[in-house]
Amino acid sequence: MDRGRLEAFSDGVIAVAITLLALNLAVAGPGHGSLLRQLGEHWPSFVAYVISFFVIGIVWVNHHGLVRNIAVVDRTLLFLNLMLLLFVVLIPFATATMATYLTSGDQDAHIATALYGVVLEGMAISFAAIFWWTLGEGRTHQPVPKEAQRTVWLQFSIGGVVYIVAIGIAFLSAPLALALIGLVALYYMFEQTPQRSRRS
Amino acid sequence: MDRGRLEAFSDGVIAVAITLLALNLAVAGPGHGSLLRQLGEHWPSFVAYVISFFVIGIVWVNHHGLVRNIAVVDRTLLFLNLMLLLFVVLIPFATATMATYLTSGDQDAHIATALYGVVLEGMAISFAAIFWWTLGEGRTHQPVPKEAQRTVWLQFSIGGVVYIVAIGIAFLSAPLALALIGLVALYYMFEQTPQRSRRS
Amino acid sequence: MDRGRLEAFSDGVIAVAITLLALNLAVAGPGHGSLLRQLGEHWPSFVAYVISFFVIGIVWVNHHGLVRNIAVVDRTLLFLNLMLLLFVVLIPFATATMATYLTSGDQDAHIATALYGVVLEGMAISFAAIFWWTLGEGRTHQPVPKEAQRTVWLQFSIGGVVYIVAIGIAFLSAPLALALIGLVALYYMFEQTPQRSRRS
Amino acid sequence: MDRGRLEAFSDGVIAVAITLLALNLAVAGPGHGSLLRQLGEHWPSFVAYVISFFVIGIVWVNHHGLVRNIAVVDRTLLFLNLMLLLFVVLIPFATATMATYLTSGDQDAHIATALYGVVLEGMAISFAAIFWWTLGEGRTHQPVPKEAQRTVWLQFSIGGVVYIVAIGIAFLSAPLALALIGLVALYYMFEQTPQRSRRS
Repeated sequence: MDRGRLEAFSDGVIAVAITLLALNLAVAGPGHGSLLRQLGEHWPSFVAYVISFFVIGIVWVNHHGLVRNIAVVDRTLLFLNLMLLLFVVLIPFATATMATYLTSGDQDAHIATALYGVVLEGMAISFAAIFWWTLGEGRTHQPVPKEAQRTVWLQFSIGGVVYIVAIGIAFLSAPLALALIGLVALYYMFEQTPQRSRRS
Repeated sequence: MDRGRLEAFSDGVIAVAITLLALNLAVAGPGHGSLLRQLGEHWPSFVAYVISFFVIGIVWVNHHGLVRNIAVVDRTLLFLNLMLLLFVVLIPFATATMATYLTSGDQDAHIATALYGVVLEGMAISFAAIFWWTLGEGRTHQPVPKEAQRTVWLQFSIGGVVYIVAIGIAFLSAPLALALIGLVALYYMFEQTPQRSRRS
Repeated sequence: MDRGRLEAFSDGVIAVAITLLALNLAVAGPGHGSLLRQLGEHWPSFVAYVISFFVIGIVWVNHHGLVRNIAVVDRTLLFLNLMLLLFVVLIPFATATMATYLTSGDQDAHIATALYGVVLEGMAISFAAIFWWTLGEGRTHQPVPKEAQRTVWLQFSIGGVVYIVAIGIAFLSAPLALALIGLVALYYMFEQTPQRSRRS
Repeated sequence: MDRGRLEAFSDGVIAVAITLLALNLAVAGPGHGSLLRQLGEHWPSFVAYVISFFVIGIVWVNHHGLVRNIAVVDRTLLFLNLMLLLFVVLIPFATATMATYLTSGDQDAHIATALYGVVLEGMAISFAAIFWWTLGEGRTHQPVPKEAQRTVWLQFSIGGVVYIVAIGIAFLSAPLALALIGLVALYYMFEQTPQRSRRS
């Protein structure tokens, strides 16, 4: 299997998943109060939409950075890539559930936000597993330099650790956990990623 | 990151978004009055479908025109492109909301149509930001000539200004605002765009 | 604009549209009678799914046949292609509406089936328009030979005429009109198409 | 028609189908019991999601393995490929139906699980038909060696036979049938497939 079709399929799945995020924005329609109030009470959906849109967008950018250097596509990589996509496809579901319950004011808000964190954690671990796979001999066109490896592991750890922290915080304050996850997205948007560090 | 995958991912997102537009056309089914009457009362959905279909179609055409000349894909471009896609993905939601409320005959019709205008304005601003980015030195294969720049800015301004005007008009007459937005789509369909002016 | 991205975008839209066909198969779930009876009463949805799946599948095959010979992509072609896609994206909606009303036993069955025919007619006309466009001088790598032109026009006419006949028949017998449309799909599946005739 | 567009279209359809699997995970929302209980009672949906995700993922991997060696794309192959995609697109529907009824505790659980098996059987038969087509003279770049053919037929038979067995078992125990189908997915994930055996 050549890398091109791995990228094309992953791009397709990520593109569909990112677009399905918007399905959850639909308002109930006439007869459910004024539209302005409906949109206002819907604010967690809009915040969640923006955060998850950039989370999935960053997955796409980083996936590209990880995969472009790959020389051999074997069964293990295909399996790890499917694992990653399995969690990416769960993001619209987890986002919708979290947004629906965020302002419920009871235990469910904690559970829903923790569920969102768990899906992101699964995604982060799958990413790290793919990176670990690329470190095997002869799997990439150019071996990843030791120093770059350290930087990349550090970056993956940040996501992996913060998502776990967010899962914990979700049980104290759901909005705080969501804010933390949003900050990680911002960090990944502006900071170095595998793609860049590999070049340096 | 090479340009090819940026185009492939954007094409994927735009293709899914344009197809999801049709989800809002579904009628309520038997037991909700004759089909003809249901389809008739549904006319705003069909008008909105056609307008939004061409709006997104033009986004795709112009996106291609903007991106094909790009030589370097950096973090800023990826971020601006995600911004653009974020608004494109909102179009089916904004279209459905607008169509649902267009004939409600109260304040909500104004709000829903203004919301539609706001999403299109966000899309137009993201487009202008991508064009602004391409003007940086060495970012395109061939520098965009001064005269072409003026034409393109003028074209972007038309969209950007008319959408703002439409947002204002939406509070006077929702159908008038929609007609104005439809006219902009027609204009972009038949007039020059970045793609062409760059060639001349 | 190069042909490649026109194909990629069209493929994307057609792929999403063909997949959305299955959304209409969902059964109501427990508490709505035995599953077997639900599936049984749902038969129009399954028949409609198979017919529309092959209708869209043939659109994809023939689109490819038409487009692969194209040398120049201009504004007119982009507009005609968007027209074609606009009707393709309507097929899942028209299919679902037709399947829902097919066995309603009243006037709505006729209307819903005629609507399905109208969408297919719009698709056929858009296809013919794209073919007409390719006949312009210098628009294809190799000019389409006169004889091949006649064959292709004949083929397009068959679809275009039969769909109109089906719209008429829909008002006498909805299932008969559907059967006729299914036969056209079978004909296109097994008979010559632009793609082939151009080669000979 | 070149192989590239056949792959691109198939990838698109498979990518959309695999992503639509997650639509069935949505919970009913506030007012339907605690979220934890809703998620708990929803377990068949999550199990079904994981199994079907890997089933479709393997379809993608094996489709690639089958198609990459193909030299000629003719009408028969296009038809067989559409058949395969028709069943792939049915998988999200069959998965959702099966998950909904799995724990219903009555006859419907058997029917729904058997339906799932029937869709997978249709998919397996379509795959075998495509493989049979590739054995025709001159259809592949390199003829498939006799020994490899035997291995591939054996592998296809395993899926084809086990799915039939699962359909039978579904009438005794729905969860057992589902477990069997999950085991086949695991087998295909870790064992040899056409792609590999052709290389050896």
